[in-house]
Amino acid sequence: MSGNSFGKIFTITTFGESHGGGLGVVVDGCPANIEISEEDIQNELDKRKPGVILGENGRELSSKAVTNRKEPDKVEILSGVFDGKTTGTSIGLLIRNTNQNSGDYSDIKNLYRPGHGDYTYDAKYGFRDYRGGGRASGRETAARVAAGAIAKKILQKEGIKIIAWTKSACGIDCRNEDLSVINKNPVKACDLDAAEKIEARIEELRKEGNSGGGLIKCRITGLPAGLGEPVFCKADALLSQAVMSIGAVKGIEFGAGFKSAYMTGKEWNDPFYSEEEDAIYTNKGKSGMAPSCKEKTNNAGGILAGITDGFPVEFTAAIKPVPSIYTTQSTVDNSGNSREITIKGRHDVCLCPRIIPVIEAMTAITIADLWLQNKILN
Amino acid sequence: MSGNSFGKIFTITTFGESHGGGLGVVVDGCPANIEISEEDIQNELDKRKPGVILGENGRELSSKAVTNRKEPDKVEILSGVFDGKTTGTSIGLLIRNTNQNSGDYSDIKNLYRPGHGDYTYDAKYGFRDYRGGGRASGRETAARVAAGAIAKKILQKEGIKIIAWTKSACGIDCRNEDLSVINKNPVKACDLDAAEKIEARIEELRKEGNSGGGLIKCRITGLPAGLGEPVFCKADALLSQAVMSIGAVKGIEFGAGFKSAYMTGKEWNDPFYSEEEDAIYTNKGKSGMAPSCKEKTNNAGGILAGITDGFPVEFTAAIKPVPSIYTTQSTVDNSGNSREITIKGRHDVCLCPRIIPVIEAMTAITIADLWLQNKILN
Amino acid sequence: MSGNSFGKIFTITTFGESHGGGLGVVVDGCPANIEISEEDIQNELDKRKPGVILGENGRELSSKAVTNRKEPDKVEILSGVFDGKTTGTSIGLLIRNTNQNSGDYSDIKNLYRPGHGDYTYDAKYGFRDYRGGGRASGRETAARVAAGAIAKKILQKEGIKIIAWTKSACGIDCRNEDLSVINKNPVKACDLDAAEKIEARIEELRKEGNSGGGLIKCRITGLPAGLGEPVFCKADALLSQAVMSIGAVKGIEFGAGFKSAYMTGKEWNDPFYSEEEDAIYTNKGKSGMAPSCKEKTNNAGGILAGITDGFPVEFTAAIKPVPSIYTTQSTVDNSGNSREITIKGRHDVCLCPRIIPVIEAMTAITIADLWLQNKILN
Amino acid sequence: MSGNSFGKIFTITTFGESHGGGLGVVVDGCPANIEISEEDIQNELDKRKPGVILGENGRELSSKAVTNRKEPDKVEILSGVFDGKTTGTSIGLLIRNTNQNSGDYSDIKNLYRPGHGDYTYDAKYGFRDYRGGGRASGRETAARVAAGAIAKKILQKEGIKIIAWTKSACGIDCRNEDLSVINKNPVKACDLDAAEKIEARIEELRKEGNSGGGLIKCRITGLPAGLGEPVFCKADALLSQAVMSIGAVKGIEFGAGFKSAYMTGKEWNDPFYSEEEDAIYTNKGKSGMAPSCKEKTNNAGGILAGITDGFPVEFTAAIKPVPSIYTTQSTVDNSGNSREITIKGRHDVCLCPRIIPVIEAMTAITIADLWLQNKILN
Repeated sequence: MSGNSFGKIFTITTFGESHGGGLGVVVDGCPANIEISEEDIQNELDKRKPGVILGENGRELSSKAVTNRKEPDKVEILSGVFDGKTTGTSIGLLIRNTNQNSGDYSDIKNLYRPGHGDYTYDAKYGFRDYRGGGRASGRETAARVAAGAIAKKILQKEGIKIIAWTKSACGIDCRNEDLSVINKNPVKACDLDAAEKIEARIEELRKEGNSGGGLIKCRITGLPAGLGEPVFCKADALLSQAVMSIGAVKGIEFGAGFKSAYMTGKEWNDPFYSEEEDAIYTNKGKSGMAPSCKEKTNNAGGILAGITDGFPVEFTAAIKPVPSIYTTQSTVDNSGNSREITIKGRHDVCLCPRIIPVIEAMTAITIADLWLQNKILN
Repeated sequence: MSGNSFGKIFTITTFGESHGGGLGVVVDGCPANIEISEEDIQNELDKRKPGVILGENGRELSSKAVTNRKEPDKVEILSGVFDGKTTGTSIGLLIRNTNQNSGDYSDIKNLYRPGHGDYTYDAKYGFRDYRGGGRASGRETAARVAAGAIAKKILQKEGIKIIAWTKSACGIDCRNEDLSVINKNPVKACDLDAAEKIEARIEELRKEGNSGGGLIKCRITGLPAGLGEPVFCKADALLSQAVMSIGAVKGIEFGAGFKSAYMTGKEWNDPFYSEEEDAIYTNKGKSGMAPSCKEKTNNAGGILAGITDGFPVEFTAAIKPVPSIYTTQSTVDNSGNSREITIKGRHDVCLCPRIIPVIEAMTAITIADLWLQNKILN
Repeated sequence: MSGNSFGKIFTITTFGESHGGGLGVVVDGCPANIEISEEDIQNELDKRKPGVILGENGRELSSKAVTNRKEPDKVEILSGVFDGKTTGTSIGLLIRNTNQNSGDYSDIKNLYRPGHGDYTYDAKYGFRDYRGGGRASGRETAARVAAGAIAKKILQKEGIKIIAWTKSACGIDCRNEDLSVINKNPVKACDLDAAEKIEARIEELRKEGNSGGGLIKCRITGLPAGLGEPVFCKADALLSQAVMSIGAVKGIEFGAGFKSAYMTGKEWNDPFYSEEEDAIYTNKGKSGMAPSCKEKTNNAGGILAGITDGFPVEFTAAIKPVPSIYTTQSTVDNSGNSREITIKGRHDVCLCPRIIPVIEAMTAITIADLWLQNKILN
Repeated sequence: MSGNSFGKIFTITTFGESHGGGLGVVVDGCPANIEISEEDIQNELDKRKPGVILGENGRELSSKAVTNRKEPDKVEILSGVFDGKTTGTSIGLLIRNTNQNSGDYSDIKNLYRPGHGDYTYDAKYGFRDYRGGGRASGRETAARVAAGAIAKKILQKEGIKIIAWTKSACGIDCRNEDLSVINKNPVKACDLDAAEKIEARIEELRKEGNSGGGLIKCRITGLPAGLGEPVFCKADALLSQAVMSIGAVKGIEFGAGFKSAYMTGKEWNDPFYSEEEDAIYTNKGKSGMAPSCKEKTNNAGGILAGITDGFPVEFTAAIKPVPSIYTTQSTVDNSGNSREITIKGRHDVCLCPRIIPVIEAMTAITIADLWLQNKILN
């Protein structure tokens, strides 16, 4: 498979471009008897839909961060579900494209947008679907979110929760880490003061035809110890592939991450405790295999030697600024001449709020796969 | 495969623990007619061997960073090579273990070393090979380096070069990026002043029974545009899995990496130029597919939409401090009681110099695989 | 992936049940720039459509062998094709279900039809989609045929041709092997006399509420020597998986096949000749690698040590009689009680004519995959 | 992976040629805590060793069928086993080559032996290891047998048994199917009268410098219903790949197999019974999923819609005559000239007795893999 599949047991294979018949995914390896409905999937899809950010109870939060394109992104379950439950066979999901405007792109079809995949797709394949980025469009991630909704249902039954939020956006860092406010602000920040400043900064950037990046943090709780496979399929290695495969992500770190480079072993190692009043992390061990224990620190980010240790898994992803900016940029055309390019269309200023459900989905898919792989041992 | 294989066309499958019969790797999918000898592989292995760091022309550089264990790590080609050339069939490589001392570990077999995989292996499998970390030992990486030597031979024929170096170690950053000095100092730093300070800091850390981390930067040059597959097998996604699968790595970033989060689109986008005096990056395009072009910046790190753009690919990996420190640490035993642990044995203070050949090897394996995958298109 | 994907480079992932939203396939790994249209795919699909058998130039041949259900089986290309050419990204194909009648199955939902997968799906998953066999329905093969149409386009460019025909059906063997008549009779036999007798026998079987089996022979010509991978992915091993994965196939043999068991080495070995008047098989060798040669016999069936030798590849598949017969049969229900079952609905009497395009499709997919894998060597 | 790996969860990757350092296999995905020793593996290897056939209790049966080469084929466990139990990590096994005589082959290095892979390896790779067939040597199967010994240990714990025997050899069919005599005759036939005739016929063939083929039947008992995955990874499809990947196998059939082509649905369908005095097959059902039931016939060979039904799985493989015959044969050389070839060396006359452990091993590996895959559902 040339890159459109991910996972070993719980496997997704996606297809679709921003323009064309639609986007879809085949989920293979999902156990039978998981309850799933189109509504379950739609709820996840709605979190990444253009033009609106959803807060608590699905209430719309208006955000300046996002494009004002309105795309319904309605999902259809084509197969693999019967009487509201998965049958164990492959699940086909389809999201039709509806709000396309191919004409927007015809004047740049011979130009390479800086920061996009136009040049590299031409170099690889000799030509490209120039309508809206083709397969390299961010719209491709809708299929991941749809598949992630199924993975989340598997994890839900096991008490495993995944939550991601904006830690920094457009140059403004959150000072607090208050997860209770994530769904109360349209940029999904963990600090309401920072959220306000981010919104204001986004407005400025929009006016200058510019864009901004950010940091997304993700936490997985309720994980048993023992997930992840030795050597090449370590939990952090697979999560890195999963998250780095999202177009806008330029870096990922686990636990203390890049700070680890500047720490000593004494500072970095997370000691285990059996009973410790001031330990802030606990796990439940694994009956007959590993005892429960506690930690005061989690520099390892919940993963030791590539295998979950039962403490929360935490990682941070670096999101680059949206490459579609409205300022005129230097580029070359497909004959090799220097040219100038001015991008039109409706684009997000900052991807943070809309990339969160994508990161959660890829995390859910990876963890569901590792969780199923571990069942073989038991 | 439970995690001991990597790659799609050029595939490696490794085995072996720090104690036992030896370490090995099966390389499958290597084209026929690649010249390879045991000496070629041995040269790469010698770069990571304990107790010594090799500089220019294989000259030994004494380093305070590394353990003084002496292990010959002699490789044997078991199959797949005939008359000095690969035959196209699977190549078996074996490195015997010779300098083992299992007795060192018997007093900690029921204890979990903080920062190691002891706890997680017990949680996963119910018991573990406690001798020297078993499969989670850093010694496992010898098999990767052996396989990487073959990948490098494939890339060499295409003019693709991989070089990695220490950018920061034990809290001391390199101020210059002078690649000509990398092999003139035992910590493989790109700045001789910093190298001296790092050596001194390592000596201090050793005296306190402590250890340090660092940053390794890697650059790939001579790459054609077009390597990497859409969506999940993007070049950066696969390199992330490859590098994060090395035990001590806690983060990875490409090009501007985590700085991207704080940049605007105007700052981040790398404009293309056809002819530009002050452009510092050039690529050769791809005849009939994409034109040659230039860049003044390389924030993308040589990868756009997951596909190489013909400019140098650059990434940085964060290395955690060596977890085997000689200070007494708190832990639990495998019955769940609080205990103290004091680690003995001979361990590196800082992994930077010895992890460089491993990062180069995983990079070479990943790029060789993507390069072979791309042949299908032509 | 739990069994719904096939292939390594040219990979198909299918989904869909006989009742539900539809059947589909994602084709990944197809090179860019292959010309393909919905019509190309529709032409292949029409060859397996219920109720009609197509002969020369798409002319309908009425056949007594097949069900009189009329299903349009219209294919839609959802992605991966732009301006009439493949883009190199994943190709999504969808065939809607339209002529379903779920009510036909409600009275047998707790009974296990002998010869079907009802019992085994319940045993595996704990429940099943009982409408028309669910995922075990023969209708699943439509997705294979659609994907096979794309594989055939790849092979066409290389001059590789695949043709399959009925060698025996309902107990009546063809005496001649005249490929010019295959599309002139509705059972696709290679002998018009036998074809007439087969049609008559089918009519008898239909009247008794019975069904029949048959033998399909398949020949691949224009193949270069060198396709197939050593050991587990031999060309014959992969073709065996491909063809045996079609529900009704119970056996497969290559070249002399089961007769080999009764031959001596002197009889079996196919000697090579450089120039031989009476040799009936020729190949073109491979410039600079293997010389052209001739054979008088092809007991090997075009494959030596799992690798094509440039002579025609030939295999025969044994097709079991259609299990849906109208006679009352003994069975058990899902509570374990002895019961009787009488199957209704519209079913084929003999699968031979409609399974031919499925066997051709699976053969094309396997060979296209091996052909692409071989490009890595050149 | 280019064909040297097999399996999805329980995976084997093999390497090695008949001449060179040795043969080996990496077994990945074996659960932890399986008891295994070098002796367990050696016992299986001894069954296929040249020059001797083992009967009951490992007693040597002299056979005229086999070569008189003596190769010790001693296996070494390199990794993955600690304190007599598998650790869950990859298991490396090595069998050194010891009894090589490369000189035997030097005079045929430019000639293509009919019936061998010499021509096809040259066509694929441009040159070949001409010593004893290189990777295409039957000796490659030793690694499969070693891996199969581990698979058998997994299945043993579940009460799953695999037994294969000679049903026909050198043109002589067994009239009885008496499994109690299989290990009492050197050709492993299920009929002592036939065995005697086969031995006599082998002696004749040897004298004429000729060889013979045969039929091997294999039966798997104790299988639960539910093994096998839908569509492409049906149990029979994977077993077909597994068995057809053994060099000498030219055909495979399940249950009624090729006879199915001549049967009607009424004859073929195996009716289920709850209680039936004269039923000869019984299964145990699957608590809460599928009820226990009985059958009078097993035309399906224990597999319905690709999934085991709890009745014995039965298949027959067609073995071609040994291609190394001592008669002078016509061939071409690697410059394309007509030549004559006379093969020397020590070769089996009939592969039947020595291929049995290979077929059992591949069956065990396939079933262990499917059994582990099924654990994900429970």
